[in-house]
Amino acid sequence: MNFSSKILEESVNALSSLPGIGKKSALRLALHLAQDNSDKANRISFALAKLAKDICKCKKCGNISDFDLCEICKAPARQNSILCIVESARDVMAIEDTNQFKGKYHVLGGVISPLDGIGPQDLSIDLLLQRIKEENTEEIIMAISPTIEGETTIYYITKLLKNLNIKVSIIARGVSFGGDLEYADELTLGRSIVSRVPYQIEY
Amino acid sequence: MNFSSKILEESVNALSSLPGIGKKSALRLALHLAQDNSDKANRISFALAKLAKDICKCKKCGNISDFDLCEICKAPARQNSILCIVESARDVMAIEDTNQFKGKYHVLGGVISPLDGIGPQDLSIDLLLQRIKEENTEEIIMAISPTIEGETTIYYITKLLKNLNIKVSIIARGVSFGGDLEYADELTLGRSIVSRVPYQIEY
Repeated sequence: MNFSSKILEESVNALSSLPGIGKKSALRLALHLAQDNSDKANRISFALAKLAKDICKCKKCGNISDFDLCEICKAPARQNSILCIVESARDVMAIEDTNQFKGKYHVLGGVISPLDGIGPQDLSIDLLLQRIKEENTEEIIMAISPTIEGETTIYYITKLLKNLNIKVSIIARGVSFGGDLEYADELTLGRSIVSRVPYQIEY
Repeated sequence: MNFSSKILEESVNALSSLPGIGKKSALRLALHLAQDNSDKANRISFALAKLAKDICKCKKCGNISDFDLCEICKAPARQNSILCIVESARDVMAIEDTNQFKGKYHVLGGVISPLDGIGPQDLSIDLLLQRIKEENTEEIIMAISPTIEGETTIYYITKLLKNLNIKVSIIARGVSFGGDLEYADELTLGRSIVSRVPYQIEY
């Protein structure tokens, strides 16, 4: 690409380092910002500088936070006895958006994946075991993706918890609400028949 | 969305103000930057701050530039007598990438579009007429999109140039190279037959 401006070129190079944004998209964004009169470029610049400087991980659960302890860990109204184990901070947000969980979280920071060179020591499993002992956890909900790596991670953690007298559950798997049975994959549909639940209505 | 971090929320709001980037994409980008260790957020922040502060328009042609005069207007090797008229700075880059044009450019800043409230007075047409007189322009190439608005703009400018004894040409329109005739639209295909050119081979 022939840039008539070095400044524009630097912006395009910086923006195209983002995932899913190629050179052409980055150019479109940079040109939009260069020709925009509403101070948008400054606002983004300021927000990202703050992101780079001030954001940290919650020391307790590993969630993304502005302080040493995240809002969820600090909240007095949330149950300490139920712990939801997730892969990433994105998953915490997804579950929080459902408004169905009032316990606390533990962010592993990934799943066990030998092919990618990620072993149990790379995840915050030690911290999890320590928390369980300190906080007298009664139930653990495994909200981890139903992939091979996810299942391996669930199996690994459950084995570690064997002698701790803790109830371990995994989130329900089956066909999606609003989804068409025709388009559900065989494995999901098969499993949803095997693990069918009683249908209850009130008379 | 439930954000556990105000800083993250601000970054998501800022990034989602970009065209084509919604809340979910912005969240993905912000989380990537928050969890990245390679100082990417700082680099983008710095580049965009510079973009907001230092980028300007070339006073002569309207192209995006780091200085009062752009690299193309300053280049002594480029012909002053041919002027290529384009809608935007993006089009200058597209034409420069072809390496087929060695004249100078004039960026209109849009096309005449009554529906969007853009009239001739909103485009840099006055500046164009002034340039033509000062620079003794001999030929003008209209490299404007073949839309209704584009055609209107070409017609309007050509009428203004009527008494100036200048050769006016438009870029060739027809089927794309590598394109399938089957998928070319009727108008393009029809026009490409009407404006067919002699086929020349060397013996």
